[in-house]
Amino acid sequence: MTLRWGLIGGGEGSQIGPAHRLGAGLDGLFAFTAGALDHRPDEGRAYGRRLGLAPDRSYGDWREMLAGERDRDDRIDLVTVATPNATHFEITRAWLEAGFDVLCEKPMTMTVAEGEEIVRLALATGCICAVNYGYTGYPLVRHMRAMVERGDLGAVRLVVAEFAHGHHADAGDADNPRVRWRYDPAQAGVSAQFADCGIHALHMASFVTGQQVTRLSADTVSCVPGRVLEDDALVALRFDGGAVGRLWTSSVALGRQHGLTLQVFGEAGGLRWAQEQPNQLFWTPLGGRTEIVERGEGGLSPAADRASRVTVGHAEGMPLAFANLYRDLAEVIAARKAGVDPDPAADLYPRAEDGLRSMAAVHAVAESGKADGAWVDARAPIHR
Amino acid sequence: MTLRWGLIGGGEGSQIGPAHRLGAGLDGLFAFTAGALDHRPDEGRAYGRRLGLAPDRSYGDWREMLAGERDRDDRIDLVTVATPNATHFEITRAWLEAGFDVLCEKPMTMTVAEGEEIVRLALATGCICAVNYGYTGYPLVRHMRAMVERGDLGAVRLVVAEFAHGHHADAGDADNPRVRWRYDPAQAGVSAQFADCGIHALHMASFVTGQQVTRLSADTVSCVPGRVLEDDALVALRFDGGAVGRLWTSSVALGRQHGLTLQVFGEAGGLRWAQEQPNQLFWTPLGGRTEIVERGEGGLSPAADRASRVTVGHAEGMPLAFANLYRDLAEVIAARKAGVDPDPAADLYPRAEDGLRSMAAVHAVAESGKADGAWVDARAPIHR
Amino acid sequence: MTLRWGLIGGGEGSQIGPAHRLGAGLDGLFAFTAGALDHRPDEGRAYGRRLGLAPDRSYGDWREMLAGERDRDDRIDLVTVATPNATHFEITRAWLEAGFDVLCEKPMTMTVAEGEEIVRLALATGCICAVNYGYTGYPLVRHMRAMVERGDLGAVRLVVAEFAHGHHADAGDADNPRVRWRYDPAQAGVSAQFADCGIHALHMASFVTGQQVTRLSADTVSCVPGRVLEDDALVALRFDGGAVGRLWTSSVALGRQHGLTLQVFGEAGGLRWAQEQPNQLFWTPLGGRTEIVERGEGGLSPAADRASRVTVGHAEGMPLAFANLYRDLAEVIAARKAGVDPDPAADLYPRAEDGLRSMAAVHAVAESGKADGAWVDARAPIHR
Amino acid sequence: MTLRWGLIGGGEGSQIGPAHRLGAGLDGLFAFTAGALDHRPDEGRAYGRRLGLAPDRSYGDWREMLAGERDRDDRIDLVTVATPNATHFEITRAWLEAGFDVLCEKPMTMTVAEGEEIVRLALATGCICAVNYGYTGYPLVRHMRAMVERGDLGAVRLVVAEFAHGHHADAGDADNPRVRWRYDPAQAGVSAQFADCGIHALHMASFVTGQQVTRLSADTVSCVPGRVLEDDALVALRFDGGAVGRLWTSSVALGRQHGLTLQVFGEAGGLRWAQEQPNQLFWTPLGGRTEIVERGEGGLSPAADRASRVTVGHAEGMPLAFANLYRDLAEVIAARKAGVDPDPAADLYPRAEDGLRSMAAVHAVAESGKADGAWVDARAPIHR
Repeated sequence: MTLRWGLIGGGEGSQIGPAHRLGAGLDGLFAFTAGALDHRPDEGRAYGRRLGLAPDRSYGDWREMLAGERDRDDRIDLVTVATPNATHFEITRAWLEAGFDVLCEKPMTMTVAEGEEIVRLALATGCICAVNYGYTGYPLVRHMRAMVERGDLGAVRLVVAEFAHGHHADAGDADNPRVRWRYDPAQAGVSAQFADCGIHALHMASFVTGQQVTRLSADTVSCVPGRVLEDDALVALRFDGGAVGRLWTSSVALGRQHGLTLQVFGEAGGLRWAQEQPNQLFWTPLGGRTEIVERGEGGLSPAADRASRVTVGHAEGMPLAFANLYRDLAEVIAARKAGVDPDPAADLYPRAEDGLRSMAAVHAVAESGKADGAWVDARAPIHR
Repeated sequence: MTLRWGLIGGGEGSQIGPAHRLGAGLDGLFAFTAGALDHRPDEGRAYGRRLGLAPDRSYGDWREMLAGERDRDDRIDLVTVATPNATHFEITRAWLEAGFDVLCEKPMTMTVAEGEEIVRLALATGCICAVNYGYTGYPLVRHMRAMVERGDLGAVRLVVAEFAHGHHADAGDADNPRVRWRYDPAQAGVSAQFADCGIHALHMASFVTGQQVTRLSADTVSCVPGRVLEDDALVALRFDGGAVGRLWTSSVALGRQHGLTLQVFGEAGGLRWAQEQPNQLFWTPLGGRTEIVERGEGGLSPAADRASRVTVGHAEGMPLAFANLYRDLAEVIAARKAGVDPDPAADLYPRAEDGLRSMAAVHAVAESGKADGAWVDARAPIHR
Repeated sequence: MTLRWGLIGGGEGSQIGPAHRLGAGLDGLFAFTAGALDHRPDEGRAYGRRLGLAPDRSYGDWREMLAGERDRDDRIDLVTVATPNATHFEITRAWLEAGFDVLCEKPMTMTVAEGEEIVRLALATGCICAVNYGYTGYPLVRHMRAMVERGDLGAVRLVVAEFAHGHHADAGDADNPRVRWRYDPAQAGVSAQFADCGIHALHMASFVTGQQVTRLSADTVSCVPGRVLEDDALVALRFDGGAVGRLWTSSVALGRQHGLTLQVFGEAGGLRWAQEQPNQLFWTPLGGRTEIVERGEGGLSPAADRASRVTVGHAEGMPLAFANLYRDLAEVIAARKAGVDPDPAADLYPRAEDGLRSMAAVHAVAESGKADGAWVDARAPIHR
Repeated sequence: MTLRWGLIGGGEGSQIGPAHRLGAGLDGLFAFTAGALDHRPDEGRAYGRRLGLAPDRSYGDWREMLAGERDRDDRIDLVTVATPNATHFEITRAWLEAGFDVLCEKPMTMTVAEGEEIVRLALATGCICAVNYGYTGYPLVRHMRAMVERGDLGAVRLVVAEFAHGHHADAGDADNPRVRWRYDPAQAGVSAQFADCGIHALHMASFVTGQQVTRLSADTVSCVPGRVLEDDALVALRFDGGAVGRLWTSSVALGRQHGLTLQVFGEAGGLRWAQEQPNQLFWTPLGGRTEIVERGEGGLSPAADRASRVTVGHAEGMPLAFANLYRDLAEVIAARKAGVDPDPAADLYPRAEDGLRSMAAVHAVAESGKADGAWVDARAPIHR
């Protein structure tokens, strides 16, 4: 069954639009059916048609799209919100209220209170509200989670997460519009690098360990002169299952491309994984040698097997990891339509609660950073 | 414009079927429209319907499919032949004769004469006959080709290609049907490991250097007792542009997963690339340091840029490389429909001539292997 | 000219004794001439003789050795103190007071006040007091220093240092005497993992950047139950030249062997080096590609060239790095004997001031760790 | 006990002299006692004195040295021959005839007949004649040998050896005297690159597998115009224990520094090791995952433990591997003096038979290369 999919944002020339269209379409589970792709209505409508949308479903803005889709019998099954960060909340709220399933780009909201409202709405409406932490779709990330869950590591003691790149290291970029807004509180809110990259690392740490952050202490700095928001942050963390965390994120680390890595150390073994070489996982049991776990090898966990598409030794990359989120969503939506429970191995997509947790962490990092690294509560207000 | 695509072979449980459906559908350029998926007609028809084919276009065998598609106005734009090797020739020939564009799995044929006939037919009909050497779809493989072409390496002196894995190393697999047929001349022809993997390495060497093999000397051995055909081969080569070649391929190399690597050494620099870490290319200019070229970085060649889908630092893998072949084909088909010349950067798919060249090389390797490594002519009989 | 060398500590079965004898003797610059190798006098004397010491110069303890050596015409030119940590201060002080040049194992002292006294004594006597931070003897570490010094990186913004291993991860080692003492304040002082490994990483950061730490905030934890002192620490730092620091050290990181790594990020480029692959350095100029700098390649800095012994491509390792400290000392001692200034490229050995700085950092880490990560002054009291 | 050691060749400015002095002296087992270091007598005598030789033992040439040492009571225990290749035979023969133990640089001789004579002489005199294949001194190379010997791999099927560098890739070096002689038959004999590097790879293959080459087929080429001897060779091999071999060696492989690697594939597992990362060994048991074996880890073979000097995680490099040969020799010489059998774990140094085997292989490669890759007998004429 092919589901109908709509996209808000992701206009011509954006990076995120093609990425979502690729991810949603990759397995043929979603057909691109409706869109409001640009903040300039005419450009958006024209681009949508060029991409094959029916003229009446290539909309000028998200409100028009919501009005148009709301009452159709063949209305879209899922809408993706890929607009500028500050608009995520308003749009996501409106579509949830209208009873649509939503996949929202990260960050889901700009404040914790907004995050709470989205969580509440998703609960009240029974709609899916997923958040795009695409890196947890990698098969070996899911295998790490399965290993922790089944106890291979014993109790997790320590999680070391990193997301470092050097793409904002050039002081000459002060007036580059693609860079400047990111460090401007008026547009980016209370945090730049942690909110942009750090939350991916933190979400992955929680996804793999099954533990949520409780408290943290952050050192946030602006290495490039003139920036108000941080371009580098070091965070010490505590998790609710007893694990200790260390997280470093930077955008001035020249030579690092997209350095998202995770190390998990438990009583009985340690794991190491890096996004830039995602098809190998390094596993060291206590007292034993480091073993190289290959994506696609025999005997992996069901969650890893389900997320793999090609045989062992063939590199898989980010677009397939990302597509796994869409595949999860397709299965969960299809299960709901069929009135059955979804396969637990498919039910791994990040949800509104994760978006809210990230927002709590972002604000905690900003608060701690301003308070000379004081330990602050970073728990998300999730009340069920 | 979405093109209509059909698939022959790739039945339920096969690896190759999902890979082709993923590659063809990944960019939304081809819609899966018709198929004859299984040598058992009923199973094939039922599987096709489960995959969403219209009942009248889910056929029982390729002849029925050819009869059904031949005269439709909305007939398929491209058919992929993914059946057992020995049937490629007959099926490809029939579809070309009927005026269809074809993508044939490798090896295209079992004999050189058959290969010649396919080349002749493609020329006579004006149809596309592509062959699935999917690894040359990797962006950095295309960048290597561009670097050679624009002279960065100067004259190419030496090409070292390797394709080693260890998946057939278990002597206990003697009766494993997934392995056994590969080493049986009745089913696999004159060569096993070279025909299965070696030709990928050789095709890549030619693709990158723009040179074709003229002569070769091969040492073919069966490391696992009881095998008639080789599971390991070492080949010395000469190319028509003056380059010397070294090629090693093995299926008993325990610890190697899918070890396709290429090194190219010229007067002015050297290149090294490996399929298992496909997003980095190592380039050493004469007298300079080795540099790490990243897929997606700024300033790469148009051919590389065109083959990339996500930003630098995000891993891309085999399915996207493979999809690049389908994308090339879509562009070339669309250009022909529009009556224009295709973009040269899209016109890189491997064609019938490459399939014929591989067949010539396979037979030369087998001949040399039997003749104690005597140097033999490996040129394909291509006459235009 | 071969110098006479003496060793205190490093008895039979120790790891550190053979390492020092190897390092001191490797270039033939020092002849092992006197020793007090064991806290049990008879065992020490016997072992020294077995190692080739003259009977009258194989002493029962360091006091006897000092008495014996003090008035000889052919007294030793350098003494190495490789005894348990808590004794370093007393022994080093006594030998300096007697006018000997000393190489002291790290940590040089247990308190900052003791460190100050050693610095004062070295200054007062004019004797060398070196401290064994052997990892800064690696040629490419010295090259990093030279690159920073000559401005290749511009202003250094960020230093990321790491020293992680997993050799104390086994909770079952609670009663293992080789492990237990390390986490016991009575024997190890105020810090375990930071004092053992962290100070190597911090010293290297200062050595390379030429900047000293001013303030720090630390999160120190004991992952293995029952430990009083920390087995894992995360430290945020500020340096006197404006750089920001991030340092992580752990002894429970299963899978890491001896993970000392340094990354330095400046305005104009970034560097990455790892002790376990010490013959390659990764250098990324702003706007350029990452280059692989090879130990021994042409055109490196004089400091790197001087520290290399074999041609490019041949692995060099820790013992040679360590020997570079002894070689530095031999040259400086020889220069002093000759009444000339030492070659600045040889004058790179870590000195009493560095030992004092480490002690200040150790106490600052312990203090901050106890105070919930409060930022504390970490400057060493060096007054000249 | 320190042995007395002499060196012939290795004059000022050479690379090989310092390497031997470092290797011989590293463990303090040999004292540099006599030398004839330069073909210019005065320069050699002066240089030897500057290096600390007694004036009467710093000789003008090897004949003077032999005359001087022959009848001394304290004559040297071992002499190293590190002169130009073409002189190895004559000098080694003379010293063996005079009853000295000799370590000869590779190649031991220029012809097979000379090699036979050296083997015969070593046997007749009972003297040690070792040949400097220093790379087999690496601890993990010795561990590979132990693994094969104790059967971890089952029967060895396949050995893949490589020694590639790019240091002679510059066509502009035609008149560079450091390069030119290597490709000139008048000075280098019948082979250049195979004789220089290939025999290291082949020796290592035999050392690890315990098998000797019987037949081979070679493709030898000169990639750089104007060279008479080969700068690149591909060799197919057969070994007397049934293994098949593949060997590639090159001096025009730009980007490779000193690429000596060995892969061994057996019925029950595969091994991979590389000289440029010598402290890790990759071991894949049949049906299992690849494991990373670390030099210095617990539970390695006695031969590996004995060859290690520092604890796990500390890089060891080439000079220590090389020193293991001298250490082996010291132990064997000491055992002979003591009238006991040497420790079998020490008795691993390459001997005259290995030098003869290399010479047989060199001539076989040259012969096969000239005969279009015909298979030729490569067995050494060893008759006992």
